[in-house]
Amino acid sequence: MRAVQVVGYHRDLEMTEVPAPTVVDPHDVVVRVGGAGVCRTDVHILEGQWAEKSGVTLPYTIGHENAGWVHAVGSAVTNVAEGDKVIVHPLMTCGLCRACRSGDDVHCARSRFPGIDTHGGYAEYLRTTARSVVKLDDSLEPAGVAALADAGLTAYHAAAKAARRLRPGDRCVVIGAGGLGHIGIQVLRAITAAELVVVDRNPDAVALARSIGADHGVVADGTHVAQVAELAGGEGAEVVVDFVGEGGSTREGLAMTRRAGDYHVVGYGENVDVPTIDLVSAEINIIGNLVGSYSDLCELMVLAARGRVVLHTTTYPLADFQKAIDDLEAGRVRGRAILIP
Amino acid sequence: MRAVQVVGYHRDLEMTEVPAPTVVDPHDVVVRVGGAGVCRTDVHILEGQWAEKSGVTLPYTIGHENAGWVHAVGSAVTNVAEGDKVIVHPLMTCGLCRACRSGDDVHCARSRFPGIDTHGGYAEYLRTTARSVVKLDDSLEPAGVAALADAGLTAYHAAAKAARRLRPGDRCVVIGAGGLGHIGIQVLRAITAAELVVVDRNPDAVALARSIGADHGVVADGTHVAQVAELAGGEGAEVVVDFVGEGGSTREGLAMTRRAGDYHVVGYGENVDVPTIDLVSAEINIIGNLVGSYSDLCELMVLAARGRVVLHTTTYPLADFQKAIDDLEAGRVRGRAILIP
Amino acid sequence: MRAVQVVGYHRDLEMTEVPAPTVVDPHDVVVRVGGAGVCRTDVHILEGQWAEKSGVTLPYTIGHENAGWVHAVGSAVTNVAEGDKVIVHPLMTCGLCRACRSGDDVHCARSRFPGIDTHGGYAEYLRTTARSVVKLDDSLEPAGVAALADAGLTAYHAAAKAARRLRPGDRCVVIGAGGLGHIGIQVLRAITAAELVVVDRNPDAVALARSIGADHGVVADGTHVAQVAELAGGEGAEVVVDFVGEGGSTREGLAMTRRAGDYHVVGYGENVDVPTIDLVSAEINIIGNLVGSYSDLCELMVLAARGRVVLHTTTYPLADFQKAIDDLEAGRVRGRAILIP
Amino acid sequence: MRAVQVVGYHRDLEMTEVPAPTVVDPHDVVVRVGGAGVCRTDVHILEGQWAEKSGVTLPYTIGHENAGWVHAVGSAVTNVAEGDKVIVHPLMTCGLCRACRSGDDVHCARSRFPGIDTHGGYAEYLRTTARSVVKLDDSLEPAGVAALADAGLTAYHAAAKAARRLRPGDRCVVIGAGGLGHIGIQVLRAITAAELVVVDRNPDAVALARSIGADHGVVADGTHVAQVAELAGGEGAEVVVDFVGEGGSTREGLAMTRRAGDYHVVGYGENVDVPTIDLVSAEINIIGNLVGSYSDLCELMVLAARGRVVLHTTTYPLADFQKAIDDLEAGRVRGRAILIP
Repeated sequence: MRAVQVVGYHRDLEMTEVPAPTVVDPHDVVVRVGGAGVCRTDVHILEGQWAEKSGVTLPYTIGHENAGWVHAVGSAVTNVAEGDKVIVHPLMTCGLCRACRSGDDVHCARSRFPGIDTHGGYAEYLRTTARSVVKLDDSLEPAGVAALADAGLTAYHAAAKAARRLRPGDRCVVIGAGGLGHIGIQVLRAITAAELVVVDRNPDAVALARSIGADHGVVADGTHVAQVAELAGGEGAEVVVDFVGEGGSTREGLAMTRRAGDYHVVGYGENVDVPTIDLVSAEINIIGNLVGSYSDLCELMVLAARGRVVLHTTTYPLADFQKAIDDLEAGRVRGRAILIP
Repeated sequence: MRAVQVVGYHRDLEMTEVPAPTVVDPHDVVVRVGGAGVCRTDVHILEGQWAEKSGVTLPYTIGHENAGWVHAVGSAVTNVAEGDKVIVHPLMTCGLCRACRSGDDVHCARSRFPGIDTHGGYAEYLRTTARSVVKLDDSLEPAGVAALADAGLTAYHAAAKAARRLRPGDRCVVIGAGGLGHIGIQVLRAITAAELVVVDRNPDAVALARSIGADHGVVADGTHVAQVAELAGGEGAEVVVDFVGEGGSTREGLAMTRRAGDYHVVGYGENVDVPTIDLVSAEINIIGNLVGSYSDLCELMVLAARGRVVLHTTTYPLADFQKAIDDLEAGRVRGRAILIP
Repeated sequence: MRAVQVVGYHRDLEMTEVPAPTVVDPHDVVVRVGGAGVCRTDVHILEGQWAEKSGVTLPYTIGHENAGWVHAVGSAVTNVAEGDKVIVHPLMTCGLCRACRSGDDVHCARSRFPGIDTHGGYAEYLRTTARSVVKLDDSLEPAGVAALADAGLTAYHAAAKAARRLRPGDRCVVIGAGGLGHIGIQVLRAITAAELVVVDRNPDAVALARSIGADHGVVADGTHVAQVAELAGGEGAEVVVDFVGEGGSTREGLAMTRRAGDYHVVGYGENVDVPTIDLVSAEINIIGNLVGSYSDLCELMVLAARGRVVLHTTTYPLADFQKAIDDLEAGRVRGRAILIP
Repeated sequence: MRAVQVVGYHRDLEMTEVPAPTVVDPHDVVVRVGGAGVCRTDVHILEGQWAEKSGVTLPYTIGHENAGWVHAVGSAVTNVAEGDKVIVHPLMTCGLCRACRSGDDVHCARSRFPGIDTHGGYAEYLRTTARSVVKLDDSLEPAGVAALADAGLTAYHAAAKAARRLRPGDRCVVIGAGGLGHIGIQVLRAITAAELVVVDRNPDAVALARSIGADHGVVADGTHVAQVAELAGGEGAEVVVDFVGEGGSTREGLAMTRRAGDYHVVGYGENVDVPTIDLVSAEINIIGNLVGSYSDLCELMVLAARGRVVLHTTTYPLADFQKAIDDLEAGRVRGRAILIP
């Protein structure tokens, strides 16, 4: 089959012919790829940023946001069958460690990460396991949802975790209405009646946020912390979800958080640097957020099927992988870029 | 009545004769003081550290850890009667704001803090309200529990909040086995079956911690982070409660926290300074902790009455207030110093 | 002032002239009534069903669903001021018992219930306390929301409690789309993305339910348990909220509940009669629901102000109280009947 | 190998020679049985009570409370290795259904139940899967803990679920201090500081309960509901855990439950028959309880290893299976009967 592989760092990807994956373990599932999201992480991989952390052996097939159709299943697979439309959770998890047993599979002690530390989905076929495939509703197509597999799932996870304490009348500030943020806003709108305040540097992103459910939009122009404070009655918001995590957003996000409130870190880059006395005297929580669990992905697919979460995509034939990456780097992609094998 | 007052900053306290407080509002409660804890905060007040923050007018009566007997009650008081033994919650709260209405009275929008911003308990009588008095079990005496009113309550609050997620087999690290820490350890031992690992620089404090229920004691000697890691199976603890908050404890505490774990800040002094990528990739939470609520104080008094939380005290007649403060500053107090009017 | 009073059981109400209530306690609030809901409970009171339980002394002013404008406040009132538009929580609570201190004021150990055991709101003025008044948004009028004070609040409480475990993809069955049910449906629609299945005997109520957000409507015609089972994939719903509680609905509701699911009892009349083996083998919970707390009422008013909960009302001048009651008994009221003093 | 099998209903068990089980699926684990608990359910099986429900084909090997040593593992097993001491969770679960994925494996959509619907542990070897084996601490022996695999696990699950809301000062009533109850009491004592009130008809059981941590023991002699009411300050207990479920215990248990309290059903036999008005007016919850999850079993083994849960056992050689059953039926077993192959 055709596969697009990392053949070296600081080099372009290359398409090559490799054997298609087959079922080895009884829980294996081979997916015919219907769409593979092109993510900024893919660019970082090529820059070598993940080389040491992943320990992957080159060459290998890149691509960690995948959806498609079940092509073959192992003998122990009971949850999907050949021909099913599926989205693929980004991690392959063991199902036996303490984290997996409690439903928190993201913290699996033995997880693998296709596209990062083993073969991914810029290819015609992908091997994963029964534990990682979620059946799609008839109304959804693999190419349309592939980019929800990782970026969207991270946004869902943070929004759903944040929403657990939000009651009508509470304020929730979302910092960043870009790729993750605009999914998070749609999720928050679907599952809470909290007042949503969205902050972004880009006026277009703020306008988009308003159109998908934000109650207030604030352009980050230097007066935004004060504006948010005023919108939140001078006391700050019960919950702040920061999809940016750099450029000063952590300090600003904490300043927007009300006494006894939660500040969620999703985006990353800078340090959180805060006096302990501030955390103690206002009794504030700083909540880390990683990607979502398998159950989170199931729930996100329900929202997608109900039309509550919509993602804009631009599709490219698999062979045009370089153009997709170039467009991404040049900021020319509208929504998310998806490769179609 | 006699009262010990702040008459100026950077000056000694002075005992003087003032009118005894009386019931003004129908919810008022006047308490005959049976014991008033001498706290390091009292020293800080004299140093002027609280002058601006509290905005208090001098002279005023100091003392924020109080217990005694109900002397008089307003017409609307239904929860205590004259003669009842009571401990006094450190805050006077409004009962009407959103925080008060949800049981989270510590975050009352209009709270007052006797001993800090209004007259406190280094005196024969203290005015507080029905919302701040907790009846004591027959087995407890005001002088024995007064110091639980603030320091003990803070430790209880953090320990009880931390315990909510602890299951048998989970590890809980306590950093600091001093005034607050040794209460926290007793509380954790009473309400969880988690494995308790206590870290302190002082070998005596570590030995005390072992004697009151810690499963493991670690002297902070430079190898302690590694020792804790080993005790926690190499993965860190589900929960870390940091009663120190300075001298590097925040960095060490975060390093001891397992993936998806909680790091509780109780003590304060330095900054938490942590890369967002670390919070995200391990999905760690940093949890602020302030003093406990009225309900927390009720619960702590139950543990005290059952003998599950024991506090060492050294008593001084009220007139010896200066000696108590001098002893505290010189490190000569065994347990907590209590003034007896 | 004019007041409509119960002067005897099995007798009509009578309008009479009585002294207007005044502020006695510093926390008292006197409200000029803007609307008083006419509720089936009022009819039951006249039938003597509450005589023993309430122990009220006749004559007294009836009416427990009230809203209006603040007319006078006691000296300790900080949350409202003269002229404020308010809705009145149906209970006057002490603020000092353990339930009140934990935010669960509905279970106050010393509550009073205006309109049931003391003077209520079929009158020009009503005395309540600062703990029972919720300020209204500018967009809301007392007459429009009065009936949310008890019936609506009960529905909100049950729906919000039920919603806490509902995730996208979960099914929630609502039994009964009448007075309470149609509020519950709007609340569930506002705060969850669960799939809502509504069951009612009345096809018009089912149609209304569909129009306000139910995903599926089922007319209770004998095949409804089977229909619901099919809609829920054969396994039952994660949550069932029963606003009926009689005529066999408890047995049917439990039959619709999935393994590990919650069956909420809101309406009442018949017995729940279920083999313990069924509760154990399917690990089902039966959850009782009373009226909502003060915080619940605040949250419901937010949903009302946002237009997420809408109530149909028919207004009557206070003097036409008998017509309002006659219309209610004859089934001639569209929505809820509201008396306007 | 030798195995004790059900060869017909209303007939004695028979020991016979059968092939030892082997690893078939990569997740299979074959356990050399070290102890198999003899349970009243085994008697019920012989009486045919489970014939229809289980649909098992005769003959088959009975025994659902098992522990031993790992004898062989499939290729995908990562959590145990040959020679490990293990206790065996009573269910074999799929790991793929929604319940399994959320950590609630007890409600697995495709579970099997060795000893009930497939071959169990009255034998030299037992086949189960990696998902069902929990490694034992060095201090524990299979024969000592086998009976915790089902009866003990059920008690742990109910006690741990009940404990989640118990705070110091809350009251917890345990009805029944027999096989399950005396485990439940030890668990509650280990993980809560609630006040434990134990009710049993048997004065010896009450005395045992007191010796293992109950604060109060009440002999059920007709005055017990009143005695419990008095112990609970006239208001009932926040939590009641009923390990009996017959002979009137459900009505009594509900009568002992405080407003907003939880009544847990664990034992079964009679119907819960309660007016909906009682559930509503006191806002009481009736909570079903089934056996515990895999994580529950891990936690129970921690308590056992720490000596917090102790079980009395009487051992019999496997060949004496009939004597063990006869002794059980005659009430001659002290603690639990364990067969040793």
